[in-house]
Amino acid sequence: MTAIKGIRLASAAAGIRYAGRNDLVLVELAEGSTCAAVFTRNAFCAAPVTVAREHLAAGAVRYLLINSGNANAGTGEAGLRAARETCRLLAGMAGCALNQVLPFSTGVIGQDLPVDPFAQSVPTLMQGLAEDGWDAASRAIMTTDTVPKRVSRRVDITGGTVQVTGIAKGSGMIRPDMATMLAYVATDAGVPADVLQTMLNGAVEASFNRITVDGDTSTNDACVLMASGASGCAVDALDSADGQALAAAVGDVCRELAEMIIRDGEGATKLVRIRVEGAARPDEALAVAYTVAHSPLVKTALFASDPNWGRILAAVGRAGVAGLDVDRVRIWLGDVCIVSDGGRAPGYTEEAGQAVMDSSEIPVRIDLGRGDSAETVLTCDLSYDYVKINAEYRS
Amino acid sequence: MTAIKGIRLASAAAGIRYAGRNDLVLVELAEGSTCAAVFTRNAFCAAPVTVAREHLAAGAVRYLLINSGNANAGTGEAGLRAARETCRLLAGMAGCALNQVLPFSTGVIGQDLPVDPFAQSVPTLMQGLAEDGWDAASRAIMTTDTVPKRVSRRVDITGGTVQVTGIAKGSGMIRPDMATMLAYVATDAGVPADVLQTMLNGAVEASFNRITVDGDTSTNDACVLMASGASGCAVDALDSADGQALAAAVGDVCRELAEMIIRDGEGATKLVRIRVEGAARPDEALAVAYTVAHSPLVKTALFASDPNWGRILAAVGRAGVAGLDVDRVRIWLGDVCIVSDGGRAPGYTEEAGQAVMDSSEIPVRIDLGRGDSAETVLTCDLSYDYVKINAEYRS
Repeated sequence: MTAIKGIRLASAAAGIRYAGRNDLVLVELAEGSTCAAVFTRNAFCAAPVTVAREHLAAGAVRYLLINSGNANAGTGEAGLRAARETCRLLAGMAGCALNQVLPFSTGVIGQDLPVDPFAQSVPTLMQGLAEDGWDAASRAIMTTDTVPKRVSRRVDITGGTVQVTGIAKGSGMIRPDMATMLAYVATDAGVPADVLQTMLNGAVEASFNRITVDGDTSTNDACVLMASGASGCAVDALDSADGQALAAAVGDVCRELAEMIIRDGEGATKLVRIRVEGAARPDEALAVAYTVAHSPLVKTALFASDPNWGRILAAVGRAGVAGLDVDRVRIWLGDVCIVSDGGRAPGYTEEAGQAVMDSSEIPVRIDLGRGDSAETVLTCDLSYDYVKINAEYRS
Repeated sequence: MTAIKGIRLASAAAGIRYAGRNDLVLVELAEGSTCAAVFTRNAFCAAPVTVAREHLAAGAVRYLLINSGNANAGTGEAGLRAARETCRLLAGMAGCALNQVLPFSTGVIGQDLPVDPFAQSVPTLMQGLAEDGWDAASRAIMTTDTVPKRVSRRVDITGGTVQVTGIAKGSGMIRPDMATMLAYVATDAGVPADVLQTMLNGAVEASFNRITVDGDTSTNDACVLMASGASGCAVDALDSADGQALAAAVGDVCRELAEMIIRDGEGATKLVRIRVEGAARPDEALAVAYTVAHSPLVKTALFASDPNWGRILAAVGRAGVAGLDVDRVRIWLGDVCIVSDGGRAPGYTEEAGQAVMDSSEIPVRIDLGRGDSAETVLTCDLSYDYVKINAEYRS
């Protein structure tokens, strides 16, 4: 992972829920940095999401304060007070305004967030801030994740090379509806806040908003993009060559992080790439892709490496596409055509389907035969371990 | 189970897929009977669904021919030919028209339906027709069902007492691979076909259309209501006292059959009754109820008997209710209020929630606080056995 000049991080073991591991992260943006963010669309959004939205609107973010182990969601007024109190603690010590701190939480829903661990750990965090803190931070934000998720890219723009580094966490309750999970991406390019927000929106739409583990949009999803400007290279507009180059790098980082989340999906044994093409509109392509991606029957067949094409066909058939002509629908597993002319494709063999299913990465392609729109969604299979992890998570 | 005068049934072991058990059922409606049916809305509907729809439209149904073990779905033109051929075989032997026979299939998707077993078994079936054939039929239509499902009711109307008897199969509201929900209900009341269809539509909407195991709508779902008139009592209009009484009995039979399907849901260990009230419109109530009912996180928590109310709250929050005021939402497990004022209800204790969760029947009540509409949906939990059954089904 490449450090980003102007962005410093520190991690600490605050004992919020987990013992013997870091669970609190502080990110500092150098003065003059810009910051953009997108948040969950879940109506029951967590207290830190509400507070972070308010503070982001003030426009001069200097710190992100992120805890794992407790989502501070479903906690009502008490949760809002706790989130604000953690920001106040930090602002007091850092000498900044309350609304220059954005709070983030991830973990169990519905338990009161204790503020004491923050009070005790903030001095340590302030002292520990360093540009090489990304690796520790990527581990400290994990909950049911089994691996840390981080990506770096470099891109040449006018005046020099700029860096983009991002980290994310997320493994279950994943259906990014804006963003999902938590992700923090930073660059040392200088980017005006409005350009940065547009850049982030585009990157998230094509990455975190195209993945699903279980269809359960979280209460705490957030994705943050920070630009320190410390490289001395600036991007002033998205439609310039430099803007496009930086946006592509940010998009790459988000896509890779999103793919890492699916690979680490709770209980996942397969990465499944569902491309729907020939749709009349993009929303139609997405509706079909998500119906297939969320079908428990498709997901258990994928887990069993069973080329059970009938379940994919049935899911497409119930996706609510008005006037779907099933005789025009074609479906492929990898390069193997499994469905055409309203049923099993002529020449399809179980052996050919099985060969694709035995792989750990399974491409599913569905042509609806009614237009030019296409969308791709990433998902994973449904295994015993998904049930185990989620049946035992609170015990 | 009460026999229905004018309706005769026979079952046989045709060897379509299963060895050593009945897998073919013939139902005969006495001359002058009426018949109504509803079918799956899956665009990839099975061949027998297409043929049954056509034949039903002709309006003089005399026979239902039902096989288990093979869904004849995803089989294209060959499947349509096979379905018509089985009807032709029966019509030839029974001396009726081809379109007086409705075919039904349930079982594995995508395998050609063999016609030979029908040819061999139809004579046996014709000879075996008897009014007491309901019990054998309820077993012959089973696939992954672990128990047969049958219900009888009697109702007094003008002129005497009429009977309503129904059977169903299904272990998920739908499972493309294996089954689908099939239900056959009969009465010895006389009912005009159009009144019968309206009565069936209402009964199905409040029963089979309010249950879900996994959200996967089958390619083969069908529900049939037959009226022989053999009791000598006739119902001419739905809005008469007799019409309402009979409709209530038919509705009861359908609701009980639907509940039996959920109790026998694949891997199910809990029956979960999700009532959403205080909604602005019925479709809003249903959207919330189904979002909760389909949430893998809610379902695994139910399996674990974990009063993880945060997952219910998160599912309500992502159900797409525009302008939902989370501070007005209240949620109960049984009589225990778990959510109010945007978070965990004051006074809620894990012990109280646990007591409800430990039961095998779990009522969840959600008040959205924005209107007068209410809907109830039945579902079950998501267990290891659901994954096992569906990962191993074809192996």
